[in-house]
Amino acid sequence: MSWISELKEQLGDACIRTDAEALQAHAGDKWHAAVLPEAVALPESTEEVVRILRVASAYGIPVTPRGAGVGYVGGCVPVHRGLVLSTARMNKILEINPADGVAVVEPGVLTADLQAACAAQGWFYPPDPASRKESSIGGNIATNAGGPRCLKYGVTRAYVLGLNVVLADGRVLSCGGRTHKNKQGFDLVSLFCGSEGMLGVITRATLRLIPAPPARAALHASFPRFALAAEAVQRILQAGHLPCALEITDAFTLAAARRHMGGSVLPEAAEGHLILEIDGQPEAVRHELQDLVALLEGMGAVGISPALSEEAIEEIWQLRRGFSESLKATGLTKLNEDIVIPRSRLVELVEFCAQLQRESGIPVACFGHSGDGNIHTNIMVLKDEEGNDRRDQADALVHRLFAWVLSRGGSITGEHGIGLAKARWFPSAVGSVAMEVHRSLKLALDPQGILNPGKMSL
Amino acid sequence: MSWISELKEQLGDACIRTDAEALQAHAGDKWHAAVLPEAVALPESTEEVVRILRVASAYGIPVTPRGAGVGYVGGCVPVHRGLVLSTARMNKILEINPADGVAVVEPGVLTADLQAACAAQGWFYPPDPASRKESSIGGNIATNAGGPRCLKYGVTRAYVLGLNVVLADGRVLSCGGRTHKNKQGFDLVSLFCGSEGMLGVITRATLRLIPAPPARAALHASFPRFALAAEAVQRILQAGHLPCALEITDAFTLAAARRHMGGSVLPEAAEGHLILEIDGQPEAVRHELQDLVALLEGMGAVGISPALSEEAIEEIWQLRRGFSESLKATGLTKLNEDIVIPRSRLVELVEFCAQLQRESGIPVACFGHSGDGNIHTNIMVLKDEEGNDRRDQADALVHRLFAWVLSRGGSITGEHGIGLAKARWFPSAVGSVAMEVHRSLKLALDPQGILNPGKMSL
Repeated sequence: MSWISELKEQLGDACIRTDAEALQAHAGDKWHAAVLPEAVALPESTEEVVRILRVASAYGIPVTPRGAGVGYVGGCVPVHRGLVLSTARMNKILEINPADGVAVVEPGVLTADLQAACAAQGWFYPPDPASRKESSIGGNIATNAGGPRCLKYGVTRAYVLGLNVVLADGRVLSCGGRTHKNKQGFDLVSLFCGSEGMLGVITRATLRLIPAPPARAALHASFPRFALAAEAVQRILQAGHLPCALEITDAFTLAAARRHMGGSVLPEAAEGHLILEIDGQPEAVRHELQDLVALLEGMGAVGISPALSEEAIEEIWQLRRGFSESLKATGLTKLNEDIVIPRSRLVELVEFCAQLQRESGIPVACFGHSGDGNIHTNIMVLKDEEGNDRRDQADALVHRLFAWVLSRGGSITGEHGIGLAKARWFPSAVGSVAMEVHRSLKLALDPQGILNPGKMSL
Repeated sequence: MSWISELKEQLGDACIRTDAEALQAHAGDKWHAAVLPEAVALPESTEEVVRILRVASAYGIPVTPRGAGVGYVGGCVPVHRGLVLSTARMNKILEINPADGVAVVEPGVLTADLQAACAAQGWFYPPDPASRKESSIGGNIATNAGGPRCLKYGVTRAYVLGLNVVLADGRVLSCGGRTHKNKQGFDLVSLFCGSEGMLGVITRATLRLIPAPPARAALHASFPRFALAAEAVQRILQAGHLPCALEITDAFTLAAARRHMGGSVLPEAAEGHLILEIDGQPEAVRHELQDLVALLEGMGAVGISPALSEEAIEEIWQLRRGFSESLKATGLTKLNEDIVIPRSRLVELVEFCAQLQRESGIPVACFGHSGDGNIHTNIMVLKDEEGNDRRDQADALVHRLFAWVLSRGGSITGEHGIGLAKARWFPSAVGSVAMEVHRSLKLALDPQGILNPGKMSL
């Protein structure tokens, strides 16, 4: 019997799909690469995942686990074909328990749905990737997703207390638990957070919730020079503030935003821009907002717009989303590289990107999470005479950018992961011993190498 | 040549010690077990650690890495003798860099020294184990140390950005880095945080710093019943407060404290007690403290003592330390078990401990980090007629306590780790598949099993 027949016999046609539509829908993510799998599995329980992996390991079939498929690095492209295992149908919120400060969820739950369910009880699940309306918790955990609010609240890992993971051979590992502290042995939970589907399939997660801060506030402000906005980041932190979000935008993006959005939101001459959000108790937030306005005024910021109402705060985040849309509105494909640099090097990064742009003629736009140095560096892909993307040209620029980032003690990815897109740069980013350790761990947990093969250059 | 001669030849007599004093000083930690090693290594650099581990792996000699030796679970007892490798002489703070929000340190730096050096620049390294004046950063990382302020700030892991680790065979692994986000491959940093010296020797750490909150405040309050204090924990969190610390104390400890400390700090009838600390911007802290006082008054708390001055706050923490001393003053050995339970089960835990006490005649005192359910449960070891500790009796009680904790979804350790002391309970705490995964990881990184052998039942 073929492995597909065996899977269908064991799990049924609703779970194991081989129709063209299903294969097409599971060929990739938001990155450009796509490969059709031979079959797609849509299990509804841990037990079904176990049966799938037992068959796959018996036949030595590649299995590419997949969350909601909204990654940016081709992490769920089934490059060796075989089976794509989607957790989309495991989408139940099993428990929200404020007394214990935990939520228990299946991996297919969408981030925004979990956040809404927590908020309804006055509790808060902080990780907030920009894709939160379409990204799933399982995918967030597999990539250790971040978001603008990581500066204060940390990335997904900080909110995962326990996991059920089906290993390559079908064994079910339960690690961590529902307690907020746990020092029982090695930190297996962290090993699976960010493992990009290469070490196991997450089938259940126990997440840490925190009390919802009762109030928040935001502001945005413009600066005549980018360097002044970067300096404001340092001064804000040095004064003892820890905003949830602290977003910086460069001159190139601001110019695109003025063209695209019109109106008078952004001063004509602004070459740097900050958005910040704070949260906490109502009185505290009001006072802190005043302090921050005074600090920015003292530095020569212009167009300082504080916001205390939910509506005004939402307008500010709308502006942030507008920056991204303004770049898309150029009609060019945007390669969004989520590099990270030590926070002191923000100005250097933007100057280096301006130099890249001058030398190559390819626009490079920087904006992002300045507080943790995680700047989305967008390389705009020019088109050739026939209207096709000149990826080779853009890739050469990415190569120069990554080399520079690594030479400055930075990281080539802060949020999206390695997957396929960054696999060729991964060995030089982490070094030979780290590559050996990655291979040893992979071999220890997946000796046949069936889980998400072809990623991370492993 | 023997391995000791070879080490002495390569590293000198100041680094490789075999005198009785050195062996005695490196036989154990704060737990009762002790075994004399055959030699002690006191390297001063990563390069020296590499040479030591090359010799040890060539000869197949057990190596027990060790921080400051203030652990509670016998984690650095060299049960298979061989070599103890202490990082005490690698004690330099290499860099404190507020612009990048990082500190770079050698593992032997004491926690309190690092905190003081950060504070001098207006920055903050939050992890604060009670032993902070004598515990080292390397030991904190190897055990993923916690402390009272973990509720808001998280455990040590949340502050480790990058590590240099010498592996069992002498390879030097550099993982993570100096950026605040990093999604380059598997989370190797977390794998070594809390690995209790069984996977590698940490020789350098890059740590995340945050802006020092400019103000803090504290309060303590008593309750006529423990259940009311536990209820207050829930109400405080439910109202959207996230104190740095939220410490609860039971009736047994309070009675001991009244006997030992005298005075009128604690109301006569109090059977439950809370200490909380908040921090942030000055106005915010003042307002939040008022809100918290009002909330506790509304619940019938008595003796509510808010504190805004550093002196008054310190007095409250003095009281907390007094609780621990009061138990020691009974003259009995205190087994401090750092169990963790889901937060909703605080009252159940204290009732179970009262039942244990009634049935066994052995005093059991509970106090600790109520916000994260990490309660230090102190079993007082009675003495036999000859004045020796009746450890067998106490161990039987620990066994019942752990069985209960695990049956309630708890963890047998939240801060101290497994080491030797909890090794026999570890397999039942994590289950058979987790044990297999632990063994696979250990085998992958230390195939000869020379690093800290005999721990965690691996």
